[in-house]
Amino acid sequence: MASSKLKINSGRLNDTLQSTCTSWGALSAPSSGMCRLTLSREDKDVRDWLVAECKGLGCDIKVDQMGNIFAVRPGTAKDRRAIAMGSHLDTQPAGGRYDGILGVQAALEVLRTLHDNDVATHCPIALVDWTNEEGARFPGAMMASGVWSTKSSTPLEACWDTQDKEGMRMKQVLEDVGYLGETKCDYRDNGLECHFELHIEQGPILEREGKSVGVVTSVQGMKWFAVRVEGVEGHSGTTPMPGRSDALVTASRLITAVRDTALKTELGVATVGVIKSDTSSQATIPAGIEFIIDIRCSTDELVEQLATEIFKAFSSIITSENNGTSYTIQRTWDLPESRFHPRCIDAVWTSALEAVGEDQMIDMKSRAGHDSAWTSRVCPTSMVFVPSKDGISHNPNEYTSPEHCALGAQILLDAVLRYDEKVKAGEY
Amino acid sequence: MASSKLKINSGRLNDTLQSTCTSWGALSAPSSGMCRLTLSREDKDVRDWLVAECKGLGCDIKVDQMGNIFAVRPGTAKDRRAIAMGSHLDTQPAGGRYDGILGVQAALEVLRTLHDNDVATHCPIALVDWTNEEGARFPGAMMASGVWSTKSSTPLEACWDTQDKEGMRMKQVLEDVGYLGETKCDYRDNGLECHFELHIEQGPILEREGKSVGVVTSVQGMKWFAVRVEGVEGHSGTTPMPGRSDALVTASRLITAVRDTALKTELGVATVGVIKSDTSSQATIPAGIEFIIDIRCSTDELVEQLATEIFKAFSSIITSENNGTSYTIQRTWDLPESRFHPRCIDAVWTSALEAVGEDQMIDMKSRAGHDSAWTSRVCPTSMVFVPSKDGISHNPNEYTSPEHCALGAQILLDAVLRYDEKVKAGEY
Repeated sequence: MASSKLKINSGRLNDTLQSTCTSWGALSAPSSGMCRLTLSREDKDVRDWLVAECKGLGCDIKVDQMGNIFAVRPGTAKDRRAIAMGSHLDTQPAGGRYDGILGVQAALEVLRTLHDNDVATHCPIALVDWTNEEGARFPGAMMASGVWSTKSSTPLEACWDTQDKEGMRMKQVLEDVGYLGETKCDYRDNGLECHFELHIEQGPILEREGKSVGVVTSVQGMKWFAVRVEGVEGHSGTTPMPGRSDALVTASRLITAVRDTALKTELGVATVGVIKSDTSSQATIPAGIEFIIDIRCSTDELVEQLATEIFKAFSSIITSENNGTSYTIQRTWDLPESRFHPRCIDAVWTSALEAVGEDQMIDMKSRAGHDSAWTSRVCPTSMVFVPSKDGISHNPNEYTSPEHCALGAQILLDAVLRYDEKVKAGEY
Repeated sequence: MASSKLKINSGRLNDTLQSTCTSWGALSAPSSGMCRLTLSREDKDVRDWLVAECKGLGCDIKVDQMGNIFAVRPGTAKDRRAIAMGSHLDTQPAGGRYDGILGVQAALEVLRTLHDNDVATHCPIALVDWTNEEGARFPGAMMASGVWSTKSSTPLEACWDTQDKEGMRMKQVLEDVGYLGETKCDYRDNGLECHFELHIEQGPILEREGKSVGVVTSVQGMKWFAVRVEGVEGHSGTTPMPGRSDALVTASRLITAVRDTALKTELGVATVGVIKSDTSSQATIPAGIEFIIDIRCSTDELVEQLATEIFKAFSSIITSENNGTSYTIQRTWDLPESRFHPRCIDAVWTSALEAVGEDQMIDMKSRAGHDSAWTSRVCPTSMVFVPSKDGISHNPNEYTSPEHCALGAQILLDAVLRYDEKVKAGEY
């Protein structure tokens, strides 16, 4: 088959990835980290560059109402939607050079390889840069792929209305940076044949098992809960210890219970990543503490179970403390469990097998959310994972070797071509 | 004696206190709270008003290098320093109308009463407004009385150099608002005969015991420690529960231990009022958490003991957790225990006895720091406490009844006149 003859250019892929990171969003040396918040100056600049590159490869560019960029290389069939390779170019405030970025750069390398080799595919082949995957500037991770899929609980207008810390509304920012497109952000108007995504694992499993490739079969379910603990403010010197209603002490017990419950029940993972206090006085007993619990399990039922266990623990803490503090819980966000499509899983699996052999690959469940979780709800989808050094991600020390980046890009190319051949052959 | 004939004007005192709070620093209605940060526009305005009022009563005004205002009503003796009534006009960002403010307003009412009645005292009588008692804008509580006493570990130049959140240096701000005075901020150059301070209790004891007046005999010792917990950042979805180095989970256990140790040992009070995380991402395991411990006990030895017990608990938590997190402790601030002077305690005690009778008064230890803790190191000092409703302070709901405010002012007047008579009689 064609795929076995085409080779992506590893040097070009890695050089482009590193140089564009250095140009747009790099943290100060010696850190190799990134701060490329969605729709920031840096994100606009790398988008502009990407659009120009893709145009140079003969792609048609569509930008939708959420700023998602679809760079489509035409195929020979006129009645087929594009086989997409999507991911995101935005990062956490102190993130790395691979989370999301590798997927888009690998997709560009695939387009370059097809272009250099004058490959005529049956389906159009698309690179997609999904807006605001991180949710680090405008709250709501995987925001724009969620809108596109129409399955997210936050529809277009609500997303447009979200504000960053400076109070800027997303729609205004999209317009300001020139990425408020006219294409409808809806898969029914601007659909895809299928969606492949190369991503770093962001966890330690591949490295620990000594594997090079993860064939991703599903994304675990996740839910976020905002907890607010209320106590009674008081002077730290004059309020006797008995009878204090210290919201931070209660919050500390609850946060400990989140960890202990997840560890003990082994139902999944639960994390408190953000904590905020109403008070900024060192001499005041805190009266209001807010924190967010992030719960992820392999199925939605397990998410429910773990949440129930955690809140049971909360309730018994409050009862046994009996110190006048109280709490409220609000569900803020969720991403139901996603099962990927056998056709896409097969394309990735077969390509990985060819590239590295069975010893070097495993089936995996993604423990992080990805744009593919949303696309999988409306078109066949799967993902390729490559190893993360020490399992570190969302951190300047995030690292994936050039060899693994290239391997992932090669498998992405091969999977796309395999899927295209099946379509051409009338099998899909 | 003269004191038994002079009566302060309760209506005038309370009207002036309320109207100046409403004019300068009131939080939006319906709150009766205050935000009058030191040397802010509001603080400058109330200072300007205070200076004008005191000049109208025939006082000489001195402003020192830290902006402390000394309004001195001359006495008949030319060789005596002033008997002072001091407190502060600044508040916490969300404070009340009584903490500090009552002491200064009562001092003004005393000056007005002396003026109205044409009383000629032997010693000069001074009102003192101490700068930045709260430490809420420029870090360092009781800052300017500490400099004046020369016993604080933070000398003049270091205080001038502190910055507020906007990066404004204190010396510049003092100059900008017109309160960078030329008088040396040093008790050896600008001394006082003695120092009385009326203050709200800021705790629940008077109210609980059904008393109207506390005769304050000492201020407990206090120390602050900054704790930093370090862990390893990681993705909340992809990092398995075992093996996480979650700084927030460890910090939560430490914060719980602060409370539990203070409660169990009964050595004093210990509070964590401020907590900060390096991370603001909901999907990241926190790698850096900072919090501040405020420890207060009746003696310095007990402060040391309680700190030792807390840090012993920390050490055993880290050992038993063994999760790769670690912490550092830095001592940031302290105020050693202060014992007030028998002469001043006697003046307050006798005046309180006369005003309310023995049933309505108790000896007390102050559990909050006050400017009097510093003055007591260099001149005879004592304080009068009046009740705080529900023990609440550093909070918009802080409240002391008009009757109790007036009672405190009357005792302040009587104590000052008593002390003056003893000096005149050659006893002191």
